[in-house]
Amino acid sequence: MIRIGLDMMGGDFAPLEAIKGALEFLEEEGTPIELMLIGDETAIRPILSQYPLPADSYKIVHASQVIEMQEHPTRALKEKTDSSIAVGFQMLAAGKIDAFISAGNTGAMMVGALFSIKAIEGVLRPTIGAYIPREDGSLGLLVDVGLNADCKPENLNQFAILGSLFAKHILNIEDPGVGLVNLGEEEGKGNLLAQASYPLLKENNQIRFIGNIEGRDILKQKADVMVCEGFTGNVVLKLAESVYDIFKSRNIEDDHLNRFNFESYGGVPVLGVAKPVIIGHGISRATAFKNMIRIACSMIETDLTGKIKTAFKPEAD
Amino acid sequence: MIRIGLDMMGGDFAPLEAIKGALEFLEEEGTPIELMLIGDETAIRPILSQYPLPADSYKIVHASQVIEMQEHPTRALKEKTDSSIAVGFQMLAAGKIDAFISAGNTGAMMVGALFSIKAIEGVLRPTIGAYIPREDGSLGLLVDVGLNADCKPENLNQFAILGSLFAKHILNIEDPGVGLVNLGEEEGKGNLLAQASYPLLKENNQIRFIGNIEGRDILKQKADVMVCEGFTGNVVLKLAESVYDIFKSRNIEDDHLNRFNFESYGGVPVLGVAKPVIIGHGISRATAFKNMIRIACSMIETDLTGKIKTAFKPEAD
Repeated sequence: MIRIGLDMMGGDFAPLEAIKGALEFLEEEGTPIELMLIGDETAIRPILSQYPLPADSYKIVHASQVIEMQEHPTRALKEKTDSSIAVGFQMLAAGKIDAFISAGNTGAMMVGALFSIKAIEGVLRPTIGAYIPREDGSLGLLVDVGLNADCKPENLNQFAILGSLFAKHILNIEDPGVGLVNLGEEEGKGNLLAQASYPLLKENNQIRFIGNIEGRDILKQKADVMVCEGFTGNVVLKLAESVYDIFKSRNIEDDHLNRFNFESYGGVPVLGVAKPVIIGHGISRATAFKNMIRIACSMIETDLTGKIKTAFKPEAD
Repeated sequence: MIRIGLDMMGGDFAPLEAIKGALEFLEEEGTPIELMLIGDETAIRPILSQYPLPADSYKIVHASQVIEMQEHPTRALKEKTDSSIAVGFQMLAAGKIDAFISAGNTGAMMVGALFSIKAIEGVLRPTIGAYIPREDGSLGLLVDVGLNADCKPENLNQFAILGSLFAKHILNIEDPGVGLVNLGEEEGKGNLLAQASYPLLKENNQIRFIGNIEGRDILKQKADVMVCEGFTGNVVLKLAESVYDIFKSRNIEDDHLNRFNFESYGGVPVLGVAKPVIIGHGISRATAFKNMIRIACSMIETDLTGKIKTAFKPEAD
């Protein structure tokens, strides 16, 4: 039985939307899971009576504290040891849950993932990616989107491997193509980082490198995994997110525009840490929570973490 | 009388669309100008007979060669001395025209601007910006969009001054606000470059710095001048350009979406070189050429280059 820890206190609409999302997941999916609802029991109970989950599908794990969105991540994690995020990481580290999901303080989630759970051996820098909606309705993965603002070529090369494994096993893309986000298509183009990363990606036999991709290719289907440092990736992601707000406010109804509602995708896991950790958007609603639970299940069922460990074992090169 | 050199051979739809654009400009604007139509006379004449310009508004300057779009910029400029681009820069350097416009080989235009015309004293790196359509219908300026893929903090600080002068005198924004494109709003956020650039921008009394802006702010009205290195800027610009193609192909009709048709804005000048040089998009059509002529006129009438020279004079600090 898959045991998933769900932070009940994280995100602007928790615990209500987290429970609604859990309910949607349990109703729609056959996967037998046990949800550990981590948070303030007195806040959780009334919502559970309104949206009851099957009795055998969950347990409440009381946590008396909450890390607020604006708190300093490291300090908050250290001081609030009975916060839902701290408890979640304690349970994950102790093997009491198989994955931990939160839409709470992003910084605290990152710190917890990197320091309580730690990077997989051989992974220089874990990374966070984001789904990118594409013209044909499929999803691509942009990686990194802000965890690593300054990168070395070797980091980008590793993001390509991590992203490819995620795309293959979670997005079910058979043989994902990796593109290096760049300012021109030809080999040799780019800033110093992109120029130095290109040959590493080209020689990397763990990925299928398709070459440079430009800004105009990001929302197309040119590459399934799009690699860049977290500065550019973050700016690109937030720009793409804003497209939805801008055109939705103009009352445009369009299926593809709706795919730019990133909130609906839920979070993307921290790739390269030893156990599944999924960080959601602060504005996550039921659909986002449902999708995060679904991604956590996929990660556990496909043993994505194990596959990443194998890929980064020294003898795997 | 303002004399503007217009490359008749540059761009996918030249010389036809260049002449149509010139005609539109002359019909719509009262500015008395003399256009120097630089290119193959035998290609220009038939189109002029179809779209006749007033006899006193133009001269044909025959150039026997063409630098093609895919040619190596430096080599092409050196070898094809009678190409329309080379002739244009010769005329500009000799003072026979006051501005030079081309939608041709971007690399050759950059090389010509930097080496035939040269940077203004004190300008470490000239830059190219791009118009960014904003929610309220106004235009902002993103700078740099690809000329300088790797930058130092001092470069970004200068782009802020150059962009502010352009925004003030050409976009008629009274007191333009400058934003540093970044992955978070708070001071101290960012990659090493952004972190080091922030204090320079903050202390720069030649600009009105409003702080960091995120990807989600680029298409809003938060900052009039948005500063970043050319790698991120290029990716952002091309991503924003692709929004038009993607949603237009879905038959969405919307005024604001039409503003994402960047082609209609024409080119943005190379900022920081000693004379007005405007580089257009390869796919420029009549409206783009018209707007490039208009921008060239504004630059000359407002003496933008002179104002930049003053701003970068050592004693101006």
